[in-house]
Amino acid sequence: MIIVMSPGAPQASIDRVRGEIERMGCTPHLSQGKFRTVIGAMGEESSLDLNHLQSLDGVEKVVPIMKPYKLASREFHEEDSIIEIGGGSVPKVKVGGQHAVCIAGPCAVENEEMLNKIARHVRDGGATVLRGGAFKPRTSPYSFQGHGETALKWMRACGDELGMPICTEVMDTRQVELIERYTDSFQIGARNMQNFDLLREVGKTRKPVLLKRGLAATVKDWLLSAEYILSQGNRGVILCERGIKTFEDSIRYSLDITSIPVARQWSHLPIIVDPSHAAGKRDYVNALALSGMGAGAHGIIVEVHYNPAEAQCDGPQALLPDMFKDLMVQLRQIAAVWKREFADIAEPVNA
Amino acid sequence: MIIVMSPGAPQASIDRVRGEIERMGCTPHLSQGKFRTVIGAMGEESSLDLNHLQSLDGVEKVVPIMKPYKLASREFHEEDSIIEIGGGSVPKVKVGGQHAVCIAGPCAVENEEMLNKIARHVRDGGATVLRGGAFKPRTSPYSFQGHGETALKWMRACGDELGMPICTEVMDTRQVELIERYTDSFQIGARNMQNFDLLREVGKTRKPVLLKRGLAATVKDWLLSAEYILSQGNRGVILCERGIKTFEDSIRYSLDITSIPVARQWSHLPIIVDPSHAAGKRDYVNALALSGMGAGAHGIIVEVHYNPAEAQCDGPQALLPDMFKDLMVQLRQIAAVWKREFADIAEPVNA
Amino acid sequence: MIIVMSPGAPQASIDRVRGEIERMGCTPHLSQGKFRTVIGAMGEESSLDLNHLQSLDGVEKVVPIMKPYKLASREFHEEDSIIEIGGGSVPKVKVGGQHAVCIAGPCAVENEEMLNKIARHVRDGGATVLRGGAFKPRTSPYSFQGHGETALKWMRACGDELGMPICTEVMDTRQVELIERYTDSFQIGARNMQNFDLLREVGKTRKPVLLKRGLAATVKDWLLSAEYILSQGNRGVILCERGIKTFEDSIRYSLDITSIPVARQWSHLPIIVDPSHAAGKRDYVNALALSGMGAGAHGIIVEVHYNPAEAQCDGPQALLPDMFKDLMVQLRQIAAVWKREFADIAEPVNA
Amino acid sequence: MIIVMSPGAPQASIDRVRGEIERMGCTPHLSQGKFRTVIGAMGEESSLDLNHLQSLDGVEKVVPIMKPYKLASREFHEEDSIIEIGGGSVPKVKVGGQHAVCIAGPCAVENEEMLNKIARHVRDGGATVLRGGAFKPRTSPYSFQGHGETALKWMRACGDELGMPICTEVMDTRQVELIERYTDSFQIGARNMQNFDLLREVGKTRKPVLLKRGLAATVKDWLLSAEYILSQGNRGVILCERGIKTFEDSIRYSLDITSIPVARQWSHLPIIVDPSHAAGKRDYVNALALSGMGAGAHGIIVEVHYNPAEAQCDGPQALLPDMFKDLMVQLRQIAAVWKREFADIAEPVNA
Repeated sequence: MIIVMSPGAPQASIDRVRGEIERMGCTPHLSQGKFRTVIGAMGEESSLDLNHLQSLDGVEKVVPIMKPYKLASREFHEEDSIIEIGGGSVPKVKVGGQHAVCIAGPCAVENEEMLNKIARHVRDGGATVLRGGAFKPRTSPYSFQGHGETALKWMRACGDELGMPICTEVMDTRQVELIERYTDSFQIGARNMQNFDLLREVGKTRKPVLLKRGLAATVKDWLLSAEYILSQGNRGVILCERGIKTFEDSIRYSLDITSIPVARQWSHLPIIVDPSHAAGKRDYVNALALSGMGAGAHGIIVEVHYNPAEAQCDGPQALLPDMFKDLMVQLRQIAAVWKREFADIAEPVNA
Repeated sequence: MIIVMSPGAPQASIDRVRGEIERMGCTPHLSQGKFRTVIGAMGEESSLDLNHLQSLDGVEKVVPIMKPYKLASREFHEEDSIIEIGGGSVPKVKVGGQHAVCIAGPCAVENEEMLNKIARHVRDGGATVLRGGAFKPRTSPYSFQGHGETALKWMRACGDELGMPICTEVMDTRQVELIERYTDSFQIGARNMQNFDLLREVGKTRKPVLLKRGLAATVKDWLLSAEYILSQGNRGVILCERGIKTFEDSIRYSLDITSIPVARQWSHLPIIVDPSHAAGKRDYVNALALSGMGAGAHGIIVEVHYNPAEAQCDGPQALLPDMFKDLMVQLRQIAAVWKREFADIAEPVNA
Repeated sequence: MIIVMSPGAPQASIDRVRGEIERMGCTPHLSQGKFRTVIGAMGEESSLDLNHLQSLDGVEKVVPIMKPYKLASREFHEEDSIIEIGGGSVPKVKVGGQHAVCIAGPCAVENEEMLNKIARHVRDGGATVLRGGAFKPRTSPYSFQGHGETALKWMRACGDELGMPICTEVMDTRQVELIERYTDSFQIGARNMQNFDLLREVGKTRKPVLLKRGLAATVKDWLLSAEYILSQGNRGVILCERGIKTFEDSIRYSLDITSIPVARQWSHLPIIVDPSHAAGKRDYVNALALSGMGAGAHGIIVEVHYNPAEAQCDGPQALLPDMFKDLMVQLRQIAAVWKREFADIAEPVNA
Repeated sequence: MIIVMSPGAPQASIDRVRGEIERMGCTPHLSQGKFRTVIGAMGEESSLDLNHLQSLDGVEKVVPIMKPYKLASREFHEEDSIIEIGGGSVPKVKVGGQHAVCIAGPCAVENEEMLNKIARHVRDGGATVLRGGAFKPRTSPYSFQGHGETALKWMRACGDELGMPICTEVMDTRQVELIERYTDSFQIGARNMQNFDLLREVGKTRKPVLLKRGLAATVKDWLLSAEYILSQGNRGVILCERGIKTFEDSIRYSLDITSIPVARQWSHLPIIVDPSHAAGKRDYVNALALSGMGAGAHGIIVEVHYNPAEAQCDGPQALLPDMFKDLMVQLRQIAAVWKREFADIAEPVNA
């Protein structure tokens, strides 16, 4: 950590900072320039209280050198993490390293028939994990909020039948236990990326967590949220870039593909993209998905519906089954550029 | 609602849209131009499913005319709402209309002594509601997370002794019941503005809720979150602008004072500003607070500490007691421009 | 254009709006709902003065239906435009449709020797257009500002020798004539995207213009700037996405690849990406370039230097010649997904 | 300047950085920690080439300590600068320190009669400088572009008659000489804030320059642009905050009042706000103006029109003369909080 003193900071302030650094177990190194004094604090940066140092008189700014997360960092775990979704009644699907994944399905699970129909479509197209919402976060209290446990049962049955692990969103600490009973993996939505109690609760389970990036979160914030989950012992975090808010108004969110090389440099965790929620509009989904894979992502999560005009939520962004099939062909070509491979469709465990 | 058809949309698509509008109980009005057809749907806009209409073939865009919230809107409730915090063991403090409020206290409640000391300072300076964190949302899992129920007890005792209603943050649905037993008002933090389950839970209580704006939320999103609370029967929502994320890196968040005239035009709910979290730095707090009152806010919530260098969280942004006193003098002058008044310090109910 | 009246707008205001629409040569269509009146103005939208209508009493908002640009729009010119750079002393290079382009070279032209060396490197790697700055826009007045006409002469000689058309930035209306004498194409930098006089001046020439997107420009703003050039008779506009400002601070700019499918849907103009200025750092350049091609771009413009530590500007973002070669191999694979092809290196005209 | 080496950077890289720092005339100070080496470069920071250091092998990041501008900095000039507009045929008006200014007038000068009428209105309301556009930057090439020199003549005559110095926008280096002949002060628009050639040209004159902040410029960028002007010998720079682009879509731009305390801390230059262009809508102008003064600005520049529905540009944001008068009364009250005073209306020099 580096502490930059204000121009003209008195010796007493400099001495105080030195003393505090020593008290925290580090070694201060002074560099006295013509205009300013700069103090380096050498040692275990995590033992230093940035906040406290910043509050001291005469301190202009404090520049951390180390990353504020540990378990999520590439320094802690040099190799790409490979996370497995599934096991038990369904095959395991790998994500990370050279393993690319396609997670697909409807936005919300509306009824059992539509779920089964869409699940077959996405399985035929090449998806290996089934997504679907049982509890839906909706910006308006008057919108459809999901079918809850009933939808979870349909999901479980459908996944088991088709040999696809499932992934569904959790929104509230009180739902964790219930959802854990049914699902193979959790999804934490963008608006809950900093719902710290929820992060801790899913961190206590041992099922993988797809952690969407918040709409205004930096990559650093995102990895700190991953750290919340990892710090509880759950090592199965998959990052998911889904677009950020910008001033651009032609598209719902700007898929921030610059986060992909950055997150891959800073962290060992796999990272996938969600082109559907960024685009908000079917026409743009494929370009965003291909772009994400081009940037080095480990796969996609995408919404598909055979009759989007009847979908109860986010119909305009759902791909038609044929568009999805075409997309998968192109995605495999781009994955090859990064030497990644999408798994073939597994046979159901009990087939 | 207005439905703009794509150039060259076939008659069948136009007919389908007309049919759907009628099915939803509204009346379609066609305007056939040289290049495009535009269809107005007249009637109760809330009975229309925007999403569904947007999914239909040949639809280019759908433009809503009415606001998507109702209870929060100025159209529903023309007069400024006046919310009361307190009652019972402490006096009631009014917020809204011509009543300006100052809520002040430490960031986190660190121990009973410091709480009592700071509370006396802010009461002497002119604050009438006491703030303090018992449960703290922290971006890092390794930071201090608050003293929980113990801190709530200290807060309650301190508020009762000084005659100040208290305000404290709730982060998790599971905490609502506990916190409700102690506090006079809830605070929902920026990162939880779209934690919809939490909004619903506090909406079921009858204690006022200070709803901070999300770091990337539009004013519309914010009022929709207010609507979640209001729709459960709790009419005590106070909006709190605390800065948004922008590309500017000289300050923690950009206090978006443009939200104040907008929210006041669209909604009857009181709106206050939080200059401390936006500034992140003591030096800028007063300018931001004065600016917020200049824009027409109904008050401020601000952090004060007599020894910021020892604060366990956000010390660099805490005002010193004397700075706070000076600020209050200036705030009263600006409030007068808007014909607002800060209440005088009430005597404790049992004094 | 659709004019939404305020709730309770008096009949006189409605009549005034109707009258004004007729005066401007369009036909008003009234839709009188329960809460509001909405007026559609049918006819040539460009003959309507949005600004004027918005100023009238009782008008809540005005929603344009048509795009505000014409020559740049896909409606005006349905097929992808194919722009040719070069001719005369150098071969012509096509950009647009199925023709992908790679423009490469140093950031600034520092001396003749380095230019020739880098030009050979990029030509060998597969670039067909040579870039290089003679006049440099620098945020600090104390930074190196470029070698001006001398650098233009070196560029011209080098391009002629290697058979590569050249591209260089113009910053000031007074430079247009000079630069036109030497260059095969102009570049307008992000900070000049709305320097309207400059757009008009390059619009009067007949050399292609690479128009970088402003750091905070929407796609609509960008196409309006293209319209400035096109409206002067110059049809050779190539759009260049180079990143926008966001709150993310881990990278210089966020390459906004969502602009690519949007611009391609709205406009017939070719669009390429500049990964170097977005990344600001060598490590991220290849991922961004591949991502841009994945999103459907028509090529890239990229900075290369054999000794970045000695570069006078933007050294940290320059690719080394070998990294550039590898990148081109990968770019060709992704271009194939979109059925695009990078041209082979042409022989010098006078070879 | 502080150079942070990558973890595991070899000794040779460290030695190279040390050598380069010495070659540039500074003294390297090494701090070798457990994980990393940090090198402080003590001495004249301006003699160090950040870019070059950042390019060296093994360098992770370079942290500048000093501000990159000098003449604009508070360190160079501790007292608030007071700039005078006018002199000669009109009285001088002071801006800065305790002198607040109100610059008002129409957006564009449409004809002589309307200019004279509006000028009298704003003078009666309390404005002391007259604004008006002769050359207009318009995002669309098809919009009204201003009356040019004719408008300048009307402005000059009107200012002289009423005893008001004038302020008008310059957009192109080729216009500087012409406009200088007529005006008392230049305005540089937001879109030209980084038109570096233009900054240099107005820097060569000795007339004050109102420098609007770019729509996505940081305060640092802005002060660097001021430095361009100052470095040519023109010390009359007045900063003008006019809103930045954010994701908020309820208002044209978000007036970023956080820039005011920051710019005042970093620089001695006066800073005013433009509420009209931020708001885009009359209803919000007064709240933004009051907010800006609350944040500590040295005044405002505002658009006024007696018949906004007929204005050729930006009618919806123009204040009516009565609204303007009321605003000035409130502004004087808020200025008093900061101990600022708006000048009384001066008598014409030749009255």
